[in-house]
Amino acid sequence: MYSGIAMGIAAEDPYDWTAKMDAMKKRSFVLVEKMKTFAKSVWMTISRVGQEDPCRVLHSLKVGFSLTLVSLLYLLEPLFKGIGQNAIWAVMTVVVVLEFTAGATLCKGLNRGIGTLLAGSLAFLIQYIAQESGQIFRAIFIGTTVFVIGTAATYMRFIPYIKKNYDYGVVIFLLTFNLITVSSYRIHNVLKIAQERFYMIAIGCGICLLMSLIVFPNWSGQDLHNSTVSKLEGLANSIEACVNEYFSNEHPNVAKDKLSEDPIYKGYKAVLDSKSTDETLAMHASWEPCHSRNCDRVPWQQYVKLGAVLRHFGYTVVALHGCLQTEIQQQQPGTTPHRKILLSESLCRSVKTDSSALLQWKKSKRANEQAKEMAERKVLRPTLSKIAITSLDFSEALPFAAFASLLVEAVARLDLVIDEVEELGRVASFKEFSPGDDRQKTERGNDAPLAMENHLPSHGDD
Amino acid sequence: MYSGIAMGIAAEDPYDWTAKMDAMKKRSFVLVEKMKTFAKSVWMTISRVGQEDPCRVLHSLKVGFSLTLVSLLYLLEPLFKGIGQNAIWAVMTVVVVLEFTAGATLCKGLNRGIGTLLAGSLAFLIQYIAQESGQIFRAIFIGTTVFVIGTAATYMRFIPYIKKNYDYGVVIFLLTFNLITVSSYRIHNVLKIAQERFYMIAIGCGICLLMSLIVFPNWSGQDLHNSTVSKLEGLANSIEACVNEYFSNEHPNVAKDKLSEDPIYKGYKAVLDSKSTDETLAMHASWEPCHSRNCDRVPWQQYVKLGAVLRHFGYTVVALHGCLQTEIQQQQPGTTPHRKILLSESLCRSVKTDSSALLQWKKSKRANEQAKEMAERKVLRPTLSKIAITSLDFSEALPFAAFASLLVEAVARLDLVIDEVEELGRVASFKEFSPGDDRQKTERGNDAPLAMENHLPSHGDD
Repeated sequence: MYSGIAMGIAAEDPYDWTAKMDAMKKRSFVLVEKMKTFAKSVWMTISRVGQEDPCRVLHSLKVGFSLTLVSLLYLLEPLFKGIGQNAIWAVMTVVVVLEFTAGATLCKGLNRGIGTLLAGSLAFLIQYIAQESGQIFRAIFIGTTVFVIGTAATYMRFIPYIKKNYDYGVVIFLLTFNLITVSSYRIHNVLKIAQERFYMIAIGCGICLLMSLIVFPNWSGQDLHNSTVSKLEGLANSIEACVNEYFSNEHPNVAKDKLSEDPIYKGYKAVLDSKSTDETLAMHASWEPCHSRNCDRVPWQQYVKLGAVLRHFGYTVVALHGCLQTEIQQQQPGTTPHRKILLSESLCRSVKTDSSALLQWKKSKRANEQAKEMAERKVLRPTLSKIAITSLDFSEALPFAAFASLLVEAVARLDLVIDEVEELGRVASFKEFSPGDDRQKTERGNDAPLAMENHLPSHGDD
Repeated sequence: MYSGIAMGIAAEDPYDWTAKMDAMKKRSFVLVEKMKTFAKSVWMTISRVGQEDPCRVLHSLKVGFSLTLVSLLYLLEPLFKGIGQNAIWAVMTVVVVLEFTAGATLCKGLNRGIGTLLAGSLAFLIQYIAQESGQIFRAIFIGTTVFVIGTAATYMRFIPYIKKNYDYGVVIFLLTFNLITVSSYRIHNVLKIAQERFYMIAIGCGICLLMSLIVFPNWSGQDLHNSTVSKLEGLANSIEACVNEYFSNEHPNVAKDKLSEDPIYKGYKAVLDSKSTDETLAMHASWEPCHSRNCDRVPWQQYVKLGAVLRHFGYTVVALHGCLQTEIQQQQPGTTPHRKILLSESLCRSVKTDSSALLQWKKSKRANEQAKEMAERKVLRPTLSKIAITSLDFSEALPFAAFASLLVEAVARLDLVIDEVEELGRVASFKEFSPGDDRQKTERGNDAPLAMENHLPSHGDD
């Protein structure tokens, strides 16, 4: 029966029909498989975003909750009777103002509030001037004002200081100003409407501030701290891996294709690309009130300074890595592992002495003895390097010399990093780190003091 | 008479009165002076912004003009009769969509358009589902939808791909969705209102696109090109200044306070900090249609790649600069200018041979001979360096060795830069640069081919 119908349908070419059916089945199977793979990858991406930082899930729920809360102004009968259509402005405000961190929300909320107030005041001044004149003159006057204020406000957005701190405020200023000025031409109770909307915007801002400052707040200052700690750790790991790989006898892994998987590269990459992220975090942190137990404000300027010094230190690590990557080592067939180890030990001793001297010098009184010890330290370094290296031929030692010189350079720059970290510890009143303590974790929400660890290979085996 | 009155007023203490008057005069004079200085500095800042890029003034005027144009929809009687109150949405759209470059405007405009459309569709679907049910159930249903969509949309903004390309679109989606869904509870002709507003938003977007694509357009792609050229020039100047300063007999200027005025620092700083700016420009350029005479689209991905390679090259320049800054040179009292010059010449010869070999190798066929020539070149380098250096004691030559090694490293990385620039030239169909041409300028609006110039000091005195 079935085959009869099939034969009937495909009477002209039964083979072709079956083949077509097979091909279609195959194609639809491939399509389903592809869709499954795509759906899986989308799901993986979505879940990874949440796993990386569970606060993101929390923030999303907070936004959903705030929106529902503010919608009640419109949905509940008694509230709506008191407020009216303008309640929708509270909903709009929540959508655009509520941001991930408290600092960002404060920055946007205050920008919006101040921008709206200023625009409202100016718009009413303009309206007051124009009110006595005729309809045509008023239209020309409003048009001219819109042009002048639009041009001036847009130009102001190019000024770096305003762009950095008040860009959103200027946009809101321009938006509100145009809204009121243009509307006032047709609507005569515009003052009342503007007043009601301002209240709604204030309610929206209030809910945003409540949700971001009180309910599970995320602080930009804390993010800034955590990012700084992870940068320090990344750099330390990079240097450790770099030096270990350089002095190991195994064939170094210099395949360029795998650069993104290289732990050395991973360690310093985050530092090099951190400028804009850090500056945004610092800008938002600058808006945040004190929130720790001691009620100290986050010294965001100091974090920015430290970030700059860390980036500069990172450049030396890149150069070290480059030194490792150039295959100069393999062009030197005379270099035996024995010699390498000899040089390694001497260099380590040199760097160690150098680091110890540095730490010693840090702990001693600074003001008077600084210059003297500095000089001693500098004399110490080349002398030891000299002992380490004179047993080798020059041409053989050239790449070693470059590496050693970069390590010395790294130590000198580490000096600047230590300076800034100590200054940060002083300004932010971190607890003193004693070696007996457990290793400080840097998880979110942890107000742990910054633990400085020196990952230079010479530092552990005294 | 006058003194009599004065005496009368200040009867108690005439001396005190005069002194007070003097102090007030002095204070007000100081205040006026301060205000003058402040006003002057504000004026300087404002005029500098325009002088740096006159297109900013033009853009501000464009925004003012567009706002006036769109206000006419509201101000002119016949237009207003056809459109009504919703005309204000066109004004709002122009304020938030019109950006400095065509790409940024397109990106924002299309994001806004698509976000609004999607939100509208979804909102009407929701409304259709809820329309038959009772008032209380509808309120609960709308509240729940607002919560779910609000949470989901906010969470989506954390996904890197969406954050990078469609962040603004998602915000507008959420804004419009809430506006329509919540409003639909009270207003029954919400479909008509939404439709009218959509037309107004379309008119606003249209004016923005017209102003940014047709009237004196600024192209992100062109900005990306110019910034790349200026980065190349900055790096070249840095290296030139670095090498010149290293081999000059004058006392090098290593004062840290003046780091920001150092031409070497200035040259590479812009490169190191360029990541986020370049990526934004490239993202906006990716939205731009073809606009040059040949109607080729700007190969923004290639510019991003070149930017990454240039930054990596820049790190070597930082290390070179660091080498220059460490005062190791001064710890070597035995180094006479004569020896320095000797080394300098030999090094130059080495680097020059190296560069020539590199260029030679570039021009020859790539596929087969690459590996062989690479090996030749690498053998050539240490041999010449050896000749250059064997006449010096090791300890004396250590810093020179480091500097030379970094220069060699720089040349190796320049190789990668040249690769990417050639690829860019191929993809973007740049004209071939012949030495007879005038030096290409990199001013805005100039579609000049990218002129590669090698500023290595060895390259001119063949």
